[in-house]
Amino acid sequence: MKKNPQKRSPCPIACTLDILGDKWTLLLIRDMLFGRTHFNEFCRSPEGIATNILANRLEKMLAHGLAEKHTSTETPIRDAYRLTEKGRSLRSVMEAVAKWGLANIDGTEARMKPKAT
Amino acid sequence: MKKNPQKRSPCPIACTLDILGDKWTLLLIRDMLFGRTHFNEFCRSPEGIATNILANRLEKMLAHGLAEKHTSTETPIRDAYRLTEKGRSLRSVMEAVAKWGLANIDGTEARMKPKAT
Repeated sequence: MKKNPQKRSPCPIACTLDILGDKWTLLLIRDMLFGRTHFNEFCRSPEGIATNILANRLEKMLAHGLAEKHTSTETPIRDAYRLTEKGRSLRSVMEAVAKWGLANIDGTEARMKPKAT
Repeated sequence: MKKNPQKRSPCPIACTLDILGDKWTLLLIRDMLFGRTHFNEFCRSPEGIATNILANRLEKMLAHGLAEKHTSTETPIRDAYRLTEKGRSLRSVMEAVAKWGLANIDGTEARMKPKAT
């Protein structure tokens, strides 16, 4: 088989990690699944993502078709982000990750508390 | 609750990504599940991990109790790595990641081929 030059290998784990293999992307997917839509809302999550990293990860999620941008109808008008079907399908990965964390890491809690503003 | 200063938050996804949130750790767990044990074997995986990154990730896996080092009985004597029970329990995460990749990324294949030496 001809190897895709953009892929490290045809391994589905390697290819998925090329998209998700960082400390932030799955947290943004978590936030979007929890109904968050705006840049400032993502910033308020308790992990405290830096704005430059947030902008980079949102662009990457758009590029990979995990999220899409739409203009909300509120005032002032701001870009809003929402998951695509492809992005929502990562729920199974998130659930496996969350279950492992709860079982193996002390101090983890199933219920996420948004950061106080 | 007093926040653990080493944790970004008590979220089990965030805490798991603090351990696994990179492009390589799950691939090493994959390799170990496939029976690979030695530094040189990990280097031969098709993704072509750099030796300095490999050394760093192996140390991190040891520190987090995902893998353990033992001295093999072969000649020459070399350090060998194997998963702990905690490391093996990541199989469920790997399977969710692999399943998502196969369903959503073109060109992925379920069967991994070791790199020719």
